[in-house]
Amino acid sequence: MLPEEVEEIIRRMEEERIQGASYLAEMGAKAYIKLAEIFEGDTLLEGIKELGTEVINVNPTMASLYNLVRFIPLTKNPEFVKAKAEEFIRLNKEAKLEIGNIGSEIIDQNEIIITHSYSSAVLEILKRAKEKGKTFKVILTESGPDYEGLALAKRLDELKISFEVITDSQMGLFAKKATLALVGADNITRDGYVFNKAGTYLLALSCYDNGVPFYVAAESFKIHPEAKVDDVKIVERKFKRDHTIIRNYLFDATPWKYIRGIITELGVLVPPKEI
Amino acid sequence: MLPEEVEEIIRRMEEERIQGASYLAEMGAKAYIKLAEIFEGDTLLEGIKELGTEVINVNPTMASLYNLVRFIPLTKNPEFVKAKAEEFIRLNKEAKLEIGNIGSEIIDQNEIIITHSYSSAVLEILKRAKEKGKTFKVILTESGPDYEGLALAKRLDELKISFEVITDSQMGLFAKKATLALVGADNITRDGYVFNKAGTYLLALSCYDNGVPFYVAAESFKIHPEAKVDDVKIVERKFKRDHTIIRNYLFDATPWKYIRGIITELGVLVPPKEI
Repeated sequence: MLPEEVEEIIRRMEEERIQGASYLAEMGAKAYIKLAEIFEGDTLLEGIKELGTEVINVNPTMASLYNLVRFIPLTKNPEFVKAKAEEFIRLNKEAKLEIGNIGSEIIDQNEIIITHSYSSAVLEILKRAKEKGKTFKVILTESGPDYEGLALAKRLDELKISFEVITDSQMGLFAKKATLALVGADNITRDGYVFNKAGTYLLALSCYDNGVPFYVAAESFKIHPEAKVDDVKIVERKFKRDHTIIRNYLFDATPWKYIRGIITELGVLVPPKEI
Repeated sequence: MLPEEVEEIIRRMEEERIQGASYLAEMGAKAYIKLAEIFEGDTLLEGIKELGTEVINVNPTMASLYNLVRFIPLTKNPEFVKAKAEEFIRLNKEAKLEIGNIGSEIIDQNEIIITHSYSSAVLEILKRAKEKGKTFKVILTESGPDYEGLALAKRLDELKISFEVITDSQMGLFAKKATLALVGADNITRDGYVFNKAGTYLLALSCYDNGVPFYVAAESFKIHPEAKVDDVKIVERKFKRDHTIIRNYLFDATPWKYIRGIITELGVLVPPKEI
């Protein structure tokens, strides 16, 4: 049995509809810190195992959660757990800043950048590019049914970055007008598939068909150490509209063939030549 | 000045959000009949010209409206106008039935058919296939922001055809599960582009990437006699969601390269070999 305060964090993670894999991993790390504040010794050791399962189950598609769980040691020492969880949070923040630095260099003057869904890594890149004085425009999708795109629009508005919001179905139309595509990721598999918000694959295909370079921005902890594309379970959250059940897988998989590069804090990973 | 009864039909055409190019062309033909019931002689001749402009302006993307206007003679004789408008409506109905006959032959036993938006020609094909005793399943998109997909779902439900509704962003995910794609058209240009509800291009790309045959069902009056892809004006209807303006072009263009065939009442048109 996990303490109620820890379960409360798990519940908030489960209910989160806008933020992505990196935010949820940070919340997961905070759950470990909370656990280590309450438990110690054998109870802590058991708690770490139990929490690991719960954290991964929040969203089994997200490699960030898997890697967080791997990062936390199985120990009876609460200080050790806290230190590692805090390290994870710090690395997460540093990775994002570095992705901003590297990614913003890819943005040229007057670029028209198309994106899909809400990615904190993409947002960081846009923010840094703006700080560097670059002029560019963002085309973003609403990202139904939860409309993360509208949350991103709000942030861009605050940052005084000019943007246009489109319906998800218009990705193909607007990919033609874009000069660069930038999306986030929830999981990057060993065989080079990028799992991200459903629709990302459609944007990648459209960009490929129109010669628009398609980049993914992702902290290295989004790279899954073992899983291949078919091993990844795609989370679904069905809903109803007008009494009709709507299927709703949250993610799709884009093969590396359609990706120009993956911007990580370690540099820009490029697809192997034979792909 | 057109009679109020005719203007009323035009207004209803402008407000239509679910039905497509073939339904609107039929309404346009009814507007001509109404005009011929009220006007004759020189007033009729002037009225036909004025109505022609208004009918095309209802939706300049739709070749069906352009071809209807071409079909109606410039004459002072109301009987002639009525006869031609009625002929158009009859040909429209016959074409749809014939498309149902031809198209339903393409559907194999246990086919999984993916479609986007609401097409009366596609619906006719599905209806005929069901009547022929074929067993199949339909995957359809919601088709935001007007949700024509939900209207199609209702029709399929009445016809006892089994179906699943998906969000628009999942087209790529579900194209992989489909064995056949079937969509309608609003305009087919001389250079072989199919204009249909925005998102059709995304479905075509996904099907092409997954080896799923992609067919268009369209009466021959959806083929534009002159226009090439860049001549077609794509109608836009911006809207607001949560105070944010959302761009909303209604249609996109799919190049013939991605289309296996166009099912018309004259037969199945196939792309020229060199494409």
